[in-house]
Amino acid sequence: MLEGYKGKALEFLSFHNADLGDIIEIQKDNITIKGVLMPSYSKDDDIIVIKLDNGYNVGISLKGINNFRIIEKKTVPPTTKAEEKKKEEKSEVKIISTGGTIVSKIEYETGAVRPALTTEEIINFMPEIKEIAKIDAEVLFSILSENMKPEYWIKIAESAKKALDNGNLGVVIAHGTDTMAYTASALAFSFKSLTGPIVLVGSQRSSDRPSSDSPINLYSAILVAKNAPFAEVTVNMHGESSDTYTLVHRGVKVRKMHTSRRDSFQSINDIPIAKVYWKDKEIKLLRDDYFTRREKNELDAKFDTRVFLLKYYPGMRADIIDYLIASGIRGIIIEGTGLGHTSTELLEAFRKASKDGIFIGMTSQCLFGRVNMNVYTTGRQLQEVGVTPLEDMLPETAIVKLMWVLAHESDLDNIRKLMLTNLAGEMNYRHIPEYFPRWYHDRIRLQ
Amino acid sequence: MLEGYKGKALEFLSFHNADLGDIIEIQKDNITIKGVLMPSYSKDDDIIVIKLDNGYNVGISLKGINNFRIIEKKTVPPTTKAEEKKKEEKSEVKIISTGGTIVSKIEYETGAVRPALTTEEIINFMPEIKEIAKIDAEVLFSILSENMKPEYWIKIAESAKKALDNGNLGVVIAHGTDTMAYTASALAFSFKSLTGPIVLVGSQRSSDRPSSDSPINLYSAILVAKNAPFAEVTVNMHGESSDTYTLVHRGVKVRKMHTSRRDSFQSINDIPIAKVYWKDKEIKLLRDDYFTRREKNELDAKFDTRVFLLKYYPGMRADIIDYLIASGIRGIIIEGTGLGHTSTELLEAFRKASKDGIFIGMTSQCLFGRVNMNVYTTGRQLQEVGVTPLEDMLPETAIVKLMWVLAHESDLDNIRKLMLTNLAGEMNYRHIPEYFPRWYHDRIRLQ
Repeated sequence: MLEGYKGKALEFLSFHNADLGDIIEIQKDNITIKGVLMPSYSKDDDIIVIKLDNGYNVGISLKGINNFRIIEKKTVPPTTKAEEKKKEEKSEVKIISTGGTIVSKIEYETGAVRPALTTEEIINFMPEIKEIAKIDAEVLFSILSENMKPEYWIKIAESAKKALDNGNLGVVIAHGTDTMAYTASALAFSFKSLTGPIVLVGSQRSSDRPSSDSPINLYSAILVAKNAPFAEVTVNMHGESSDTYTLVHRGVKVRKMHTSRRDSFQSINDIPIAKVYWKDKEIKLLRDDYFTRREKNELDAKFDTRVFLLKYYPGMRADIIDYLIASGIRGIIIEGTGLGHTSTELLEAFRKASKDGIFIGMTSQCLFGRVNMNVYTTGRQLQEVGVTPLEDMLPETAIVKLMWVLAHESDLDNIRKLMLTNLAGEMNYRHIPEYFPRWYHDRIRLQ
Repeated sequence: MLEGYKGKALEFLSFHNADLGDIIEIQKDNITIKGVLMPSYSKDDDIIVIKLDNGYNVGISLKGINNFRIIEKKTVPPTTKAEEKKKEEKSEVKIISTGGTIVSKIEYETGAVRPALTTEEIINFMPEIKEIAKIDAEVLFSILSENMKPEYWIKIAESAKKALDNGNLGVVIAHGTDTMAYTASALAFSFKSLTGPIVLVGSQRSSDRPSSDSPINLYSAILVAKNAPFAEVTVNMHGESSDTYTLVHRGVKVRKMHTSRRDSFQSINDIPIAKVYWKDKEIKLLRDDYFTRREKNELDAKFDTRVFLLKYYPGMRADIIDYLIASGIRGIIIEGTGLGHTSTELLEAFRKASKDGIFIGMTSQCLFGRVNMNVYTTGRQLQEVGVTPLEDMLPETAIVKLMWVLAHESDLDNIRKLMLTNLAGEMNYRHIPEYFPRWYHDRIRLQ
């Protein structure tokens, strides 16, 4: 459990029976330093990292330490095997933890996030959640979501299916925010039907910060998992910058739109499915066209990663496409300009790729709106060489869908057909002006 | 001028002295067909394309045509060489046309856009513009902007410099919207100082449609070019869905955010420089921190295209980076997840690239917000292997900046330093909540 420590430092801490999260006191060179023991990512093996009360953390060399004592052990409530068994049988909502900020009790500006917590820690993370549902939890992975990959998507899907098959009313998946939308898409394409909602939840600010969104996001995710009438793969995150409500987004239509804001997850070319006023335990549906709870959970999770997401920019050279062909790729999603274009200089390379049986789909780097490759010559020429316009699908959703489709179809025509079949609401055929957000166009306050 | 026609069809049309845009009448098989002669993109050389009154266009085979006559010639006002000379000397605003929808008089759903117009047509495109400034125009290119490339950026920059050096108060560049933001960035990095504003302007809907944004965008672009106190490279497009105002965006902070809306261009991580109430000829400044008109125009336009914009997604393989290294690339801009991450599986490939002297910069696919690679382990590890966090720079701006920087520096440290030097306002060190747009979270009206 002494993550990152090695050599002398590991030996020293083990000897003192110290663990990450313990409050420790060090005396060194006549100075007393008090703080929380943090993971080490130092290359040196004689450094101990502690987080001070002011939020900063410091690396302290073992050299010259006169005294070391643990002031307070990190508390972990005890649980017996029998108790765990009992919970498994009776739970209404299962929390599957994959890692990320939401399951980190400690985070700091200059240090690392430790994503791993035990099952018990997750359940005791926010005591109020036990009042709204019988909870069971499982630590499936402890990874930062930037390290999420297709083989993990399959494990998450299988774990979620098991939980629903076992009678849980819904599943909450704690996940890092970086790639949460990709995982949501992967699960959405993998489940043909669901008995209850799968709610991905994360947090933009860890629970040791006063502005943390962890508790509210988790609380409302559990409300949704247990009570929502829809049974879709969704993302539940803060809806606006205050703590009024969270939003439940359709997994295939959501995107992380800001690096740090709590309301960074927003539906694109779509409206969220529901708003959750957590204080009133109210799930307010924003639409009626959702997938409902079914009799059984049908799962078909397979992904072929021989794909590439190609974001076009002026000056892009055609040789990259030749390389992709040579590398044995089976599909390309282009993130083109405007209505779905690239330079016509790439046409021949796309024609060759297409002739080699490679699927090429077009999305737009505008993100909002729909591609339309019939308006301009370039769009028509791209279609002629085999590029398929993918409606209003997000580039991120399209690349995940393509991985799923390629694992199920080998014939190019069938691949095309499946890519244009609306499997999980990833295409929205009718847009309303409200899909486009409103921008601030007034004078800024210069101070 | 008979774009796209070849062989028999070209011969036939030339014989009849027909030109694109002429209203023609064809009698064939006892049917009379009337419409506007359009460019042909048919593979066959005996097809004439005309646009019917109902907006559709049809391809008509030469075979069986009994009669062909021109009902009305496309009108081009005559100008003499002397008149042109006179205008050049006296103009206040120069319009440089590169192509795109804004300079297309004809567009149709099922046909092609013809971007080329003559100088006279541009000036006569909207007669009102002559009332607000003495205008001169130049057709530099006639291309769709998806075909824009770095060598054209240089030509545009040189042409703009010449116009300003000749005493014009400002320059308007008519440009397709697809890659307008990239060109704006390229020009912004190329000009060290300007005597007047360079205003890129385009249109999302062509002037033959009632909802066209062409006239208002062009009109207000000329107002800005002539009267604005700032001398920056800017993009001037519709500000909201009605015709009230246009927005003048800083070229390095703007992005096309919708495939088809007229207000698709919006400032990201920034506020526009000005709002233009064209009816009142009013330029309302939204900020004071702009680059002012200088004594002279300093231009340094060079670009190295040995770069690649790599958008990360889960499942991305490291081999693509190995290929980029082998291909002789000099720089990579990563569009990472969240605060600036990729899978740690790519670390070794980045380390190798970095050791080979390849610059690697990090931006975020969230688009909004700032990268921060000090919060999580992955970010710190990426920095250790040589990845440079690029603040709140847009990925599109970063790739253009990198092309410019690489053409000026060869030492990796100097490249890093220049990438992190705020050359044209591409980095905004202080964010306000208003930068993030407001999203619609209410129930949709289902009809």
